Amino acid sequence: MYRPEIKVIDCTVRDGGLMNKWQFEDAFVRQVYQALTDAGVDYMEIGYLSSEKSFSRDEVGPWKFCAEEDIRRVIGDAEKKIKLSAMADIGRIDYDDILPKSESSLDMIRVACYVHQIDAAIDLAHHCMDKGYEATINLMAVSTVGPRDLDEGLEDLARSRVPIIYLVDSFGAFYSEDIDCLAKKYLERLSGKTIGIHCHNNQQLAFSNTIAAIIAGINFLDGSLYGIGRGAGNCPLELLLSFLKNPKFNVRPVVKVIEDQILPWREKIDWGYFIPYMVTGVLNQHPRAAMAHMESENKNKVTEFLDQVTGTV
Amino acid sequence: MYRPEIKVIDCTVRDGGLMNKWQFEDAFVRQVYQALTDAGVDYMEIGYLSSEKSFSRDEVGPWKFCAEEDIRRVIGDAEKKIKLSAMADIGRIDYDDILPKSESSLDMIRVACYVHQIDAAIDLAHHCMDKGYEATINLMAVSTVGPRDLDEGLEDLARSRVPIIYLVDSFGAFYSEDIDCLAKKYLERLSGKTIGIHCHNNQQLAFSNTIAAIIAGINFLDGSLYGIGRGAGNCPLELLLSFLKNPKFNVRPVVKVIEDQILPWREKIDWGYFIPYMVTGVLNQHPRAAMAHMESENKNKVTEFLDQVTGTV
Repeated sequence: MYRPEIKVIDCTVRDGGLMNKWQFEDAFVRQVYQALTDAGVDYMEIGYLSSEKSFSRDEVGPWKFCAEEDIRRVIGDAEKKIKLSAMADIGRIDYDDILPKSESSLDMIRVACYVHQIDAAIDLAHHCMDKGYEATINLMAVSTVGPRDLDEGLEDLARSRVPIIYLVDSFGAFYSEDIDCLAKKYLERLSGKTIGIHCHNNQQLAFSNTIAAIIAGINFLDGSLYGIGRGAGNCPLELLLSFLKNPKFNVRPVVKVIEDQILPWREKIDWGYFIPYMVTGVLNQHPRAAMAHMESENKNKVTEFLDQVTGTV
Repeated sequence: MYRPEIKVIDCTVRDGGLMNKWQFEDAFVRQVYQALTDAGVDYMEIGYLSSEKSFSRDEVGPWKFCAEEDIRRVIGDAEKKIKLSAMADIGRIDYDDILPKSESSLDMIRVACYVHQIDAAIDLAHHCMDKGYEATINLMAVSTVGPRDLDEGLEDLARSRVPIIYLVDSFGAFYSEDIDCLAKKYLERLSGKTIGIHCHNNQQLAFSNTIAAIIAGINFLDGSLYGIGRGAGNCPLELLLSFLKNPKFNVRPVVKVIEDQILPWREKIDWGYFIPYMVTGVLNQHPRAAMAHMESENKNKVTEFLDQVTGTV
């Protein structure tokens, strides 16, 4: 589907990093950056923006911080043709640690928050905008938010200056009918703003729910290479670009970097469709129990996992 | 979604057998049969109905034939609580080789055909009905059929006595909008008949397209355990049952048999989402080139495959 307002955001390093503590080699990030550029993708989310005091570099890789020197080392000196984004979690970044846009390679900061953090998220997003960045607020885990809380949250967001608000299916629990209903609500309540979508693939619906979002009028679309991301992962970027058929996109560099950099990771970490992730998606639960099960020696004992989370043992 | 007319058909042995020449042990088929029964699934498609002279038992397993003695050996003497189905390909079964229903454990015969075979398919389906079976016609590869041919085919089907007609996305090429459009056409042109859906998962859309079909009014729904089936496979049965939320269905036996019998096959054969299958899905091509690539030593050389099928090398 061709609609000029549509922008595609790749979350490979940021969301994929949730599976390996952002321990990607520079060569990985550099090749992903080049491939996304060649593919015509609009934004690359290169990691989280965190203060160094919030996490230890002994435990997490550089893309948990997105320090300017790390970014520059990877992207080099050639003209940057793709916008770079970083995600900020409430409470993990000090305002003073955010560089002015003029000193940063980042173009956009996406503030992730739960519904009770919306005020803090608006404040942080405004701060980022005042420093010169594009900003979004990504309201997570909406599948667990009641209608009154959601309406209040959307009212607050509507009154803010933040121009882009994301509908996020953190648990991979939504069916297309949920997306239809929520997209309509977001577009109505946040009139004049751009709406984004970020899906998880627990029920193999991340791509189809992204299509449902496009049809509903959502224009900022998240994906990742081969769907890499937390738990069941995200909407596969290669499927999304193929669907969009916009001549500005080229899927071949995406396939090439999947072959060179993503398939080797597929041997080491288990994102994608597995029964434990499916179970938490169906139950609308956080994937942490499923991730712990997948990392255990019993990962194929899926019935045991089902019985545990449904409380039948 | 609860709608009493909805019936679920498991294709694990029949479509999964396309990946291993139906070389399933009796214990496999028996445990699948028991699990589907316990799960409340309506039909189990246990294989293809073929004449012995069409294939050699040296090359293919028993479920390419569905001989009555093979079925009885597996299902035993206890009361049969699930209906059994077999698929018949045009030209691979002699009418005389089809037992009268009174001498068979099969309840339904599904006739698979391409659009140019519709007359032959109707004749075979009528023959099966006259012998006492339920019958369907599964019109394959509709994504490659032009509108005039499809309209003529649907006219022929409308005039037949065959009560159930399937919309089949053989190549995994359809998006939900295609399903919406075709489901509407089938329901209008085949007024009074039941419509079924059989999807392939090349673009991770088999489940979501099945949901789209349900919303459009389609009532016979195909799935398979963990999506096992040719190439990218089918709609995962465990997702479909979880979505339907009909109390007659129980997903636990399905998860258990996936653990016991399907995950071991997952180590041996590659169905599911892989780039070569995605590529043929996007291009609306038969998966045979992708299957050959996946069976080669170069299965991870996915860029080479892309270049071959898009003709850029």
